[in-house]
Amino acid sequence: MKYSAKILLLFVLSSSLMMCASPSRKAGEGIDVGFCISCHQERTPGLFQSWVESKHAKKGVHCITCHIDHQAATEQKAMVFPEKCGECHPEQLTQFWKGRHSIGFDRMQIQGEYLAIPQEIRSAFCERCHSIQNKCNSCHTSHRFSVKEARDPGACANCHLGPDHPHKEMYETSLHGTIYKLTQNPDRAPRCVTCHMPNGVHNSSFGIARGPAGTRSEAVDLKEVPISKEEVERKREEMIGICTKCHSRRFAKEQLENADQVKEEGFKLMERGKESIREIEKQGLLYPSVAERRPHPTEGRTLVLADPQLYVGTSHIERLFFTMFKFHTIRVWKSGYHFSPSYTHGHGWSEMQLDLIDINEEANKLKEIFREMKK
Amino acid sequence: MKYSAKILLLFVLSSSLMMCASPSRKAGEGIDVGFCISCHQERTPGLFQSWVESKHAKKGVHCITCHIDHQAATEQKAMVFPEKCGECHPEQLTQFWKGRHSIGFDRMQIQGEYLAIPQEIRSAFCERCHSIQNKCNSCHTSHRFSVKEARDPGACANCHLGPDHPHKEMYETSLHGTIYKLTQNPDRAPRCVTCHMPNGVHNSSFGIARGPAGTRSEAVDLKEVPISKEEVERKREEMIGICTKCHSRRFAKEQLENADQVKEEGFKLMERGKESIREIEKQGLLYPSVAERRPHPTEGRTLVLADPQLYVGTSHIERLFFTMFKFHTIRVWKSGYHFSPSYTHGHGWSEMQLDLIDINEEANKLKEIFREMKK
Amino acid sequence: MKYSAKILLLFVLSSSLMMCASPSRKAGEGIDVGFCISCHQERTPGLFQSWVESKHAKKGVHCITCHIDHQAATEQKAMVFPEKCGECHPEQLTQFWKGRHSIGFDRMQIQGEYLAIPQEIRSAFCERCHSIQNKCNSCHTSHRFSVKEARDPGACANCHLGPDHPHKEMYETSLHGTIYKLTQNPDRAPRCVTCHMPNGVHNSSFGIARGPAGTRSEAVDLKEVPISKEEVERKREEMIGICTKCHSRRFAKEQLENADQVKEEGFKLMERGKESIREIEKQGLLYPSVAERRPHPTEGRTLVLADPQLYVGTSHIERLFFTMFKFHTIRVWKSGYHFSPSYTHGHGWSEMQLDLIDINEEANKLKEIFREMKK
Repeated sequence: MKYSAKILLLFVLSSSLMMCASPSRKAGEGIDVGFCISCHQERTPGLFQSWVESKHAKKGVHCITCHIDHQAATEQKAMVFPEKCGECHPEQLTQFWKGRHSIGFDRMQIQGEYLAIPQEIRSAFCERCHSIQNKCNSCHTSHRFSVKEARDPGACANCHLGPDHPHKEMYETSLHGTIYKLTQNPDRAPRCVTCHMPNGVHNSSFGIARGPAGTRSEAVDLKEVPISKEEVERKREEMIGICTKCHSRRFAKEQLENADQVKEEGFKLMERGKESIREIEKQGLLYPSVAERRPHPTEGRTLVLADPQLYVGTSHIERLFFTMFKFHTIRVWKSGYHFSPSYTHGHGWSEMQLDLIDINEEANKLKEIFREMKK
Repeated sequence: MKYSAKILLLFVLSSSLMMCASPSRKAGEGIDVGFCISCHQERTPGLFQSWVESKHAKKGVHCITCHIDHQAATEQKAMVFPEKCGECHPEQLTQFWKGRHSIGFDRMQIQGEYLAIPQEIRSAFCERCHSIQNKCNSCHTSHRFSVKEARDPGACANCHLGPDHPHKEMYETSLHGTIYKLTQNPDRAPRCVTCHMPNGVHNSSFGIARGPAGTRSEAVDLKEVPISKEEVERKREEMIGICTKCHSRRFAKEQLENADQVKEEGFKLMERGKESIREIEKQGLLYPSVAERRPHPTEGRTLVLADPQLYVGTSHIERLFFTMFKFHTIRVWKSGYHFSPSYTHGHGWSEMQLDLIDINEEANKLKEIFREMKK
Repeated sequence: MKYSAKILLLFVLSSSLMMCASPSRKAGEGIDVGFCISCHQERTPGLFQSWVESKHAKKGVHCITCHIDHQAATEQKAMVFPEKCGECHPEQLTQFWKGRHSIGFDRMQIQGEYLAIPQEIRSAFCERCHSIQNKCNSCHTSHRFSVKEARDPGACANCHLGPDHPHKEMYETSLHGTIYKLTQNPDRAPRCVTCHMPNGVHNSSFGIARGPAGTRSEAVDLKEVPISKEEVERKREEMIGICTKCHSRRFAKEQLENADQVKEEGFKLMERGKESIREIEKQGLLYPSVAERRPHPTEGRTLVLADPQLYVGTSHIERLFFTMFKFHTIRVWKSGYHFSPSYTHGHGWSEMQLDLIDINEEANKLKEIFREMKK
């Protein structure tokens, strides 16, 4: 079907839709739905088509319901904030505010990495994902706003992937992910939302007692305040409650406790890397030294190992540690909980061991090469 | 169904097909279709089955239509060139000749990397993809020649992937790729052909003002001749024309201009890497020096940084730059245009910063270690 | 449908199933199927649902048929060994014993890498895959035991992936994998089982003349005993017999012989890496030296290059070789046979060349930095 024919069909379809949706046709500032559609079904046919197939269209939720009026849409660059969605979906909004997604943008803005780069680079990556704090269409993508799509692991994978948080990769290489991919049946194997947003709860921190930014071991709440041991245990029980749909309680508990151990072992390896570097610093052999380099945007002139360590302008030995901590340690322990042997080991544990070899040899070289010079 | 039973069924099916296709049954040098089929449906049942299900089979296009005769097929190793396909599909052939696919093999043959390796290695990788210049079945795979399959991102991904041109990976990790994967609906999100071969145009260079081999910033045509600023702008407008199916013109323009900025920032970082290495060369500290090593197949005894730099037999510091330029810079800017935050940042920008740390420290070490020796 | 409603439906379904399956209802030690189901369809509804949809359920194979009795299930952690499955599937079990899957756990237990790590780490990765020796549900996952799922490349990919054996990645980036992904039609393109378990044979070593652990070139049997040249040729013919379903015999033979050459070229590069390191060792420049480090769990105080080399506690130059041999060499040659240009080259050959540059420069640095000191 050619585009012109398609547009004609859409016009017919949308006319009937508008008739079905007539009670809501009149919108903010007296603008008729037809006002938007008369241009947009021709100028942005893809956008229009997605909306036409949405539950919104069927229920009479149209452009102006969310975008207020044409001028506001233009000035705000058409953004619609969660509070607007919450007018019709209040329960989901309240739950959303309890989870970590709701602080994504704020947390990004105080990160040293973010502060250290030009704005156009920030727009091209940091903000594309962290904007989840300010928009529901990160998961329920425009203008279809599909619940089915938002529940698919692909929706989560759009942000939860890559070197420093390969949740997508870990899940896809676990038996859970394998079976789900094969069967597309959420009763046969869990997908992300099964464990982290069970029964559609919009608090995505369900069942997880999260550590603070970095690698300290206490668990914290949304404001980074440590939570009680009882609360941690309650959250573990929440998670086990999900596992037991398919596994025995004993098995589930054992697996999660094994992951706790894997995490601890990973952190031990990481500490050995830190020790080597601290010793080198004490001997004045870091190049450039902390005093010689640009101060850290939030930590100033101190040696920062692990969060919020930067990937810019440090010494080679610190950069080796950055890779160890930021990419490999996280794979060891997060894959432990996501049951991906390939990511725990091949992309995690063995890489950490290789990192340690490199850090130790670099420390040794620095001693030989630069000790004389620095005297 | 057992194979023997299947072959029997195929025989019945193909007999009826041959009857339907009877006007074309007699082919080149008087050979009957049945001549091929009598052996090949038994000896190569998979090949036969693909053909039987093709539009070609339904239209009476059979073995000899394309392969001329049995002897020619054997001697030419059965290859069928685009000119042959163009006899029935002339418009597609003319368009194909306008795009970069049509110079893929020629360009490969003058590349230093290609010249530097044994023939069996060339066959096993370079030629598998670059042969697209000489065969339509790179995308329309044999012997089904499906249009539907050729339009799928998977068909493009067969070559456009991997460390130095991860188009597949960038697309799959963009919101475009995510939504297409979820919905399989090209009206909901673009796939490769939506932007690069819109409406089935076989010039795959649509909408792109391509830079020359390497990283210089002017745009060039198929013969590497610089094109005018107006032509570049015309091509940008072509692309925006695609974006506005779903996005506002302002948004589309802003996004592409932001990508332009990201590209520029990436190139700036790369230049800093080059500077470090050029200084080391001036000081005579490259090991092996350019004079000591095998001359570059096309550039001779000069320091080559960025295209056509080789990955063989250079110094360690140049190899660090090779990775920076060939793998990481390309991810920054190409992902900028493909809207993959993960590839622009996690696999690109942050890796470039880590590369710079390594290059600078290596430069420093070379100065300390080898200055004395070289005196 | 809410969970409570679903459970009710399952109860009705399972009641009817149990009636259909009545002749087998009474099981080991006189326990009725209902005994398990009365609890488990409520406590582990996902597990129950998978079983209910299985062929086992339809044929009256229930919990106790495999798990013997409730106490045994608890004590054995519910494991069911291949011998149990073989009671009903004897042919598959006999074939399974002929392939390498059947020695996976034994071989793992004598590996240096396995011996060098804590038990919880072993459980989290090594044993998850290598346990295939002891359980059929690695491929036919619980409790659906689907033949269709086990034949999908995804089932194999659950273990055959990652840095040191990226079979999944190589297949997916080959034209074979691309077409299968697009069409989901095993008559159009092969999947793993097409070549390695043709016609459902459970000997997964079909058609492959495997080298011993490491990189020596002779082919061996399951007990690592070298096999005759004739046997090797017979196995090559087995494989060509598969290829000719779609390709000419000449083409198939040529492609496999080209892969033989690619393998040889890859091994040659690797030998150059070994030579550099052996020379450094002779000169006493390895840090830590073999004498200073913890002895290798199976090889003692010798320099181990290639299998069974460890990734722990060696020198940096050996670690560079570890990556070259374990990750990159294997990609060159295995991708040669799996026809993935991206993995043979981008993730293999070019990485090996970069490794060689790094090894040579490191050797040079060690000579300069440590020669004086070691005197």
